[in-house]
Amino acid sequence: MAVTSETLFAARTRGNVGAGIAEILALLGVPGLISFAGGFPDPVTFPRERAAALLAEFAEAGEASAFQYAPTRGLAGPLDALAERIESLQGRRPADDELLITSGAIEALELVCRSFLNRGDVVVVEGPTYLGAIMAFRGYDAEIVAVPMDADGLQVDELERRLAEGLRPKLLYTIPDHQNPAGVSLSPERRALLVELARRHGFVIVEDVAYRELGFEDDAAPSLWSLAPDVVVQAGTTSKTFFPGVRLGWALAPADVSAHLVAAKQNTDQCAGALGQRLFEEYLRRGWIDEQLAQSRALYRRKCERLLAALERSLPDSRWTTPRGGFFSWLTLPGGVDAGELAKRAVERRVGIVPGSLFFPDGRGGDNVRLSFSLVDEAQIEDGIERLGSLVGLLEQGA
Amino acid sequence: MAVTSETLFAARTRGNVGAGIAEILALLGVPGLISFAGGFPDPVTFPRERAAALLAEFAEAGEASAFQYAPTRGLAGPLDALAERIESLQGRRPADDELLITSGAIEALELVCRSFLNRGDVVVVEGPTYLGAIMAFRGYDAEIVAVPMDADGLQVDELERRLAEGLRPKLLYTIPDHQNPAGVSLSPERRALLVELARRHGFVIVEDVAYRELGFEDDAAPSLWSLAPDVVVQAGTTSKTFFPGVRLGWALAPADVSAHLVAAKQNTDQCAGALGQRLFEEYLRRGWIDEQLAQSRALYRRKCERLLAALERSLPDSRWTTPRGGFFSWLTLPGGVDAGELAKRAVERRVGIVPGSLFFPDGRGGDNVRLSFSLVDEAQIEDGIERLGSLVGLLEQGA
Repeated sequence: MAVTSETLFAARTRGNVGAGIAEILALLGVPGLISFAGGFPDPVTFPRERAAALLAEFAEAGEASAFQYAPTRGLAGPLDALAERIESLQGRRPADDELLITSGAIEALELVCRSFLNRGDVVVVEGPTYLGAIMAFRGYDAEIVAVPMDADGLQVDELERRLAEGLRPKLLYTIPDHQNPAGVSLSPERRALLVELARRHGFVIVEDVAYRELGFEDDAAPSLWSLAPDVVVQAGTTSKTFFPGVRLGWALAPADVSAHLVAAKQNTDQCAGALGQRLFEEYLRRGWIDEQLAQSRALYRRKCERLLAALERSLPDSRWTTPRGGFFSWLTLPGGVDAGELAKRAVERRVGIVPGSLFFPDGRGGDNVRLSFSLVDEAQIEDGIERLGSLVGLLEQGA
Repeated sequence: MAVTSETLFAARTRGNVGAGIAEILALLGVPGLISFAGGFPDPVTFPRERAAALLAEFAEAGEASAFQYAPTRGLAGPLDALAERIESLQGRRPADDELLITSGAIEALELVCRSFLNRGDVVVVEGPTYLGAIMAFRGYDAEIVAVPMDADGLQVDELERRLAEGLRPKLLYTIPDHQNPAGVSLSPERRALLVELARRHGFVIVEDVAYRELGFEDDAAPSLWSLAPDVVVQAGTTSKTFFPGVRLGWALAPADVSAHLVAAKQNTDQCAGALGQRLFEEYLRRGWIDEQLAQSRALYRRKCERLLAALERSLPDSRWTTPRGGFFSWLTLPGGVDAGELAKRAVERRVGIVPGSLFFPDGRGGDNVRLSFSLVDEAQIEDGIERLGSLVGLLEQGA
């Protein structure tokens, strides 16, 4: 910009906010890549014909609402259908002033940040956690503290210890079900303790349920929001259960918080797209979502099993998590192998992976890799992991 | 929220940001209202059947991209079609790194704010201006300075005077064509001077072209961006020319600015909905947009003429602007009549209007009213303005 210089831009732009996800999206563009990189749903799950049939119905009926601006909180019909769905899945129906339809879960996080965060506020995240959340919190100059995880999710006892030592978070961000990127879920006992800690220490839990409906078995633990709607803001998305092409999600929050989220949404996009809201409403009301979910779960389960079997065969010295749902397994490389180097070399062999350090706010994760099994062609999983395994072997020798 | 209190919310939430537009949207819900309030397009312009036909085509073709996540900058096809459209309408084709697809113009403004504004930065706006823009700038704690307008748009000579006196804006926000709410356009001479001032004083012009394609005649002045792509960021929307139900718009900016906007968009919604992008792309490529525009322009022109004729008959002591396009006329009430009081009393008589003070950052506009003719039922315009006129008469006597 001729008249401008870097100094004209806002101070908040000087961090590296945003580059990470852009790189992942860019990887998708490399032709011929066997990609375990992006956490995208498999297009075979997209309800193309049904979406087209619904839009034809709307047109036939001369419907205006699907095409017009929507109220900021959402259209009444979609809000009602979504509240009913949440009640059937989580056992509690949100009140009208507790539910907001958003443009995806990432927007819900943005609205939470805008409503709560002053510069320097402390946000606790899981280590590792969703890159988009790290970026969102960084965008508001929060101090991000990662608490470690294990096979049962966030180590809530470790969190309790740090709270006792004086840690004072304003928000705690967690993905309790089939976590991105770790592929593990928070145990029921830890859920109970976590909400107790939130009440005792006065912080807000931000619960991201992006993968909650994608368990391989019907054994979901209670949502944090259902356990403690007084201290939990839940961010949801339809991108993994419906399709991402309409940006659609939700935020559940106590009424006073929800009012702030609605006010904040006036400045992001004013309202979520009405067309997506109406399509999703009908998709719920006709029960089509459960048919899609049954197929999606079976598909992702099969892909996951193939991935785990391939890892068993090709990466003898590595460790990985065993997902019970979702899109991801989390790999720990043998000593001395650098995940960043591995990712770079992998692209040369036409394999896409994401190095683990992107999922930590503090540079950890150097020997970790996120493997996504959601989008990769089923028939290419073995081949991709074999290539990865031989590369790891090479780097091990070099290390 | 049990454990929280107002003090837990971020400092930025303490202003009244966001309430204004919510009230306008709420007015729409009153049954039986003759509403001149919301700046919404008329549903008769919505291309329902064509949108349905396109989605059926995408489904038939088994297309994935319309249903999947999109790259943050936008899908390649829609970006190309939009760049071509911009070239044909504005005489300059944006380079690949100058164009970004957004979730409506309001999101484009949000991205600009996030990229440029530090607390206390000065933003010059037109007085009056778009309420959503005032809210966006307030949300970033900018100091908002309104420079007056007349029948030829922003008084650029007055701006020049203030710049000479030491005013140092970082951004200047303008709606040069068929302005919201004033219904006037910036003259070609003032456009030339405005971009010269931006270059001389080192501020960025944010040009909102929401109503540009809705002129009643084919006599649009050159866009500011086409005059000075080095100092202008253009925010556009498809909501008035296609339909609002897919949240879709664009931002044109110099490459270095555009890179910042893309990074910021990772935190708002990561990408604009792919379905809307693809529908709009095809709508452009098949030339359907120009057919819709011809009908829309004729419709809004007819409505505008009826409004102006009704004002002539029923509000003898008021003044109003004469739009040459867009959705709005701006009313100045006779001395002593308070627009806020009028708006309240009007709702009792089932007429919706927006008082002028909402469109100023500084409390002015007490004797102004925005009248939108876009959505109101054509046959009810006379009746609505007659009711308004008799109310103004009553309040005049009381004043």
